[in-house]
Amino acid sequence: MPIPTVVANPFLAACRGEPVPYTPVWFMRQAGRALPEYRSLRGTGSILDAIRRPDLAAEITLQPVRRYGVDAAILFSDIVVPVAAVGFGVEIRAGVGPVVDRPFETSADLQRLRPLEPALDTPWITETVRILVKELRVPLIGFAGGPFTLASYLVEGRPSRDHLKTKSLMYTDTPLWLALVDRLADLAVASLRDQIEAGAQAVQIFDSWAGALSPADYQRYVLPAATRIFEGIADLEVPRIHFGVGTGQLLSLMTSAGAEVIGVDWRVPLDHARQLAPKARALQGNLDPAVCLAPWEVVSAQAQAVLRSRPTTVGHIFNLGHGVLPTTDPGTLTRLVELIHAETSTR
Amino acid sequence: MPIPTVVANPFLAACRGEPVPYTPVWFMRQAGRALPEYRSLRGTGSILDAIRRPDLAAEITLQPVRRYGVDAAILFSDIVVPVAAVGFGVEIRAGVGPVVDRPFETSADLQRLRPLEPALDTPWITETVRILVKELRVPLIGFAGGPFTLASYLVEGRPSRDHLKTKSLMYTDTPLWLALVDRLADLAVASLRDQIEAGAQAVQIFDSWAGALSPADYQRYVLPAATRIFEGIADLEVPRIHFGVGTGQLLSLMTSAGAEVIGVDWRVPLDHARQLAPKARALQGNLDPAVCLAPWEVVSAQAQAVLRSRPTTVGHIFNLGHGVLPTTDPGTLTRLVELIHAETSTR
Repeated sequence: MPIPTVVANPFLAACRGEPVPYTPVWFMRQAGRALPEYRSLRGTGSILDAIRRPDLAAEITLQPVRRYGVDAAILFSDIVVPVAAVGFGVEIRAGVGPVVDRPFETSADLQRLRPLEPALDTPWITETVRILVKELRVPLIGFAGGPFTLASYLVEGRPSRDHLKTKSLMYTDTPLWLALVDRLADLAVASLRDQIEAGAQAVQIFDSWAGALSPADYQRYVLPAATRIFEGIADLEVPRIHFGVGTGQLLSLMTSAGAEVIGVDWRVPLDHARQLAPKARALQGNLDPAVCLAPWEVVSAQAQAVLRSRPTTVGHIFNLGHGVLPTTDPGTLTRLVELIHAETSTR
Repeated sequence: MPIPTVVANPFLAACRGEPVPYTPVWFMRQAGRALPEYRSLRGTGSILDAIRRPDLAAEITLQPVRRYGVDAAILFSDIVVPVAAVGFGVEIRAGVGPVVDRPFETSADLQRLRPLEPALDTPWITETVRILVKELRVPLIGFAGGPFTLASYLVEGRPSRDHLKTKSLMYTDTPLWLALVDRLADLAVASLRDQIEAGAQAVQIFDSWAGALSPADYQRYVLPAATRIFEGIADLEVPRIHFGVGTGQLLSLMTSAGAEVIGVDWRVPLDHARQLAPKARALQGNLDPAVCLAPWEVVSAQAQAVLRSRPTTVGHIFNLGHGVLPTTDPGTLTRLVELIHAETSTR
């Protein structure tokens, strides 16, 4: 009788830069509006209400794992959950995004960002993670928002194209800005520790809009708080992924915050990303989600171009360069997972 | 009596990578809403109507030259002027941007993009340029829209965050896409030739949103049409500037279209841009326009950081990394021009 081989999970192995039997795949926003089963389950209620129901949030997290056969699940939640949970007053408006009642303006607003006590403030997150860890055969990724992106929502009061109020605060009252992003980092650490202790096996920090900054500004105004997040969970020893859109100029700095894995959008080819972030153990990305709206021949060709752009086959997690678009045909994503597995299988 | 030295104009010399007495400065969107004299002159009428009045358009072009002491003027016009002039049906809605009656969808829409005859379709542009060349003591920059940006406006029907319809056309009906961008290139060439022949001494191609593309997609879907524009005016021998936002990954390709000068936004430090685009004779940029809303100490420090980031003092035109923001204090821009001139003067 052959002795069964203990095979490390491909997603976790890839995060650590170890050999894998095939390239693991997951998709940012894989749980969401592209799935008919999501739309029928969610209905028209508030997304924050859905996140507060462990049974519902767990089911939504599981849907794309069943449908697509991805190699990791990501908790169905939102980056504004911790700030909402401490009472900052933020909602997610359909078709708009996070909307804040009273935007962050002065030092008095810091008091609206008290420390997060997960057991009291977000017990439903802990419960959802516990349910999922029992159900899942693939790792669960927990997550939190990055300092610049969360600060931008709080300062602008809504999604912004150019982040002018945010940059204005940053340049004009730098001590207040640094205090704000430190608070946001502490909220992220508390939430991430809770998710990991409940069973999440990896985490991703979404600093989606940090790419609006020059390297010098990122280094001065954001990197200290980002580093605070990564250091605050280092002892828990799970792979930490750092992601933003249009961050070619920041890949090295974002890795230096403490990330094992750096997320790359479609703008930077993976071989170039590897040069820009030599210290990352792994790269995650980077098919343009808009490609997934095209005919299969285009999707297939572009996905294979992503695979060819890798300098090595180890240390790569296939993903899109940003979230799944709501108009994506789920069948395309199923075929995409099959394609990546088949093209990269070493068995 | 000393023999007067013939000094090349600093802006044109910098474009050619030649020595300059000081670093020349101009600002994208220097003519516009930041200036009270612009707001009082323009009132609330349509911007396309204002562009059609040579006396008014010339005066608006001159306002920032008088106020700021910049080293170049840029024609007051808009990148949609040629497509509007051949009857495509586009307006510029205040606070929104270009809005199209019937977006570009099928090959039948190509017929709505007939060739531009400047003498018949845009005689007011020619006339404005002629007035300006008589009035100005600094060079006049003419301009046109780049293929991806103009195509995006025509296909989406309005400004777009993710250019999904545009990319969908590009991937799904590539021959139609390539025909569209070729038509747009021909319109740009006709308009640019007219502006240059009337007296414009340099031109800029604004492909502002091309940064939404990966290098491979830019090379396949946009570069041929961009090259068509640059080649179509090569014989007129004026410096050609190529600009887009968030184009760090495209600087080499955008230079290869035929540009002498490559525009760089604030995301890529100039020394890095120089490595990315070694064949450009000059770099143009790259202060974040959001910085100009901050107190003067911040503006001054960041502007000096831009100067320090240059690998050499030749081949640099100081500019913002994108257009002047409407809420900018004009006094800040005046001081900024003085600062750059004083810091870089070799006399």
